[in-house]
Amino acid sequence: MVESYFLFILISIVLASSPLPFTTGLPLVRNISEIPQDNYGRPGLSHMTVAGSILHGMKEIEVWLQTFSPGTHTPIHRHSCEEVFIVLKGSGTLYIASNSHGKYPGNPEEHIIFPNSTFHIPVNDAHQLWNTNEHEDLQVLVTISRPPVKVFIYDDWSVPHTAAKLKFPYYWDEQCSQETSKDEL
Amino acid sequence: MVESYFLFILISIVLASSPLPFTTGLPLVRNISEIPQDNYGRPGLSHMTVAGSILHGMKEIEVWLQTFSPGTHTPIHRHSCEEVFIVLKGSGTLYIASNSHGKYPGNPEEHIIFPNSTFHIPVNDAHQLWNTNEHEDLQVLVTISRPPVKVFIYDDWSVPHTAAKLKFPYYWDEQCSQETSKDEL
Repeated sequence: MVESYFLFILISIVLASSPLPFTTGLPLVRNISEIPQDNYGRPGLSHMTVAGSILHGMKEIEVWLQTFSPGTHTPIHRHSCEEVFIVLKGSGTLYIASNSHGKYPGNPEEHIIFPNSTFHIPVNDAHQLWNTNEHEDLQVLVTISRPPVKVFIYDDWSVPHTAAKLKFPYYWDEQCSQETSKDEL
Repeated sequence: MVESYFLFILISIVLASSPLPFTTGLPLVRNISEIPQDNYGRPGLSHMTVAGSILHGMKEIEVWLQTFSPGTHTPIHRHSCEEVFIVLKGSGTLYIASNSHGKYPGNPEEHIIFPNSTFHIPVNDAHQLWNTNEHEDLQVLVTISRPPVKVFIYDDWSVPHTAAKLKFPYYWDEQCSQETSKDEL
């Protein structure tokens, strides 16, 4: 009887210090150092979903922390959401086909990105981020709207928009989507 | 004639190195160290709009960098958008009246926030961020959806939701809104 009383107290303390307001069972305040990261089958990439649609129930925004080793890059891609980048460390090149209202992206503009810089990708502009600094990792904090992201991938800048390949769920959402599906069975 | 040729070359170089793809006239890649910050009439606060609706034409997300000196806090408030925080340095307390579906917020939960922690505020949950660490600034990176933010302010946690006061445009959007209006005249 005394034991169960202490167990009750212990559970109360744990619940009070780590409230679980979401169906995901995760605490409201999370330590970023403890959030899992993975390359999701893409060598040279490290991706962490800091606040996510599938993981944390976000409906309107999603935040990622990504690290690209030297020479690593995203595919050429577009998505019908806004995206804001903050460069935490390293440098590289942003390729972006702005105003790509033609049949294909065409030659992209090149922009140097550097530590403590910020930029955003307008909805549906084809773009590619590349760690062109061979001496240092490129680390970025990324925010997107309309999660989970639906990505259209281009093999090169002359591929017609209509021939870009849809990748959905995207790499880091695949596993979670499967787990969610399993949970629902 | 030679002078105007060199002027043309100079202008071409400037345009090539600093493209201006947006109507705001700002470059696509911006140095965060050079973005203006201000307390907007709120002593102890430093606010910077890293990527904003009014300043940068964002439509779906907005990113802020904010620093609260010891003892400084936000008002008790709510907004009909999602909000994600990342604590870059310092510590403090998040007060949040989750599931505030009653007539007023009521007693909030208290959550300790710490360096490298993250949390999000669900749509319309009344909350308050407070630098309760008297020895250090609290610096946070904030992302919101549905910009520009429309904030309802409560004098205390027992004020009915219907009596909360709308503050729109919010402090840091006021000046820009005025400037935009002037430009349009």
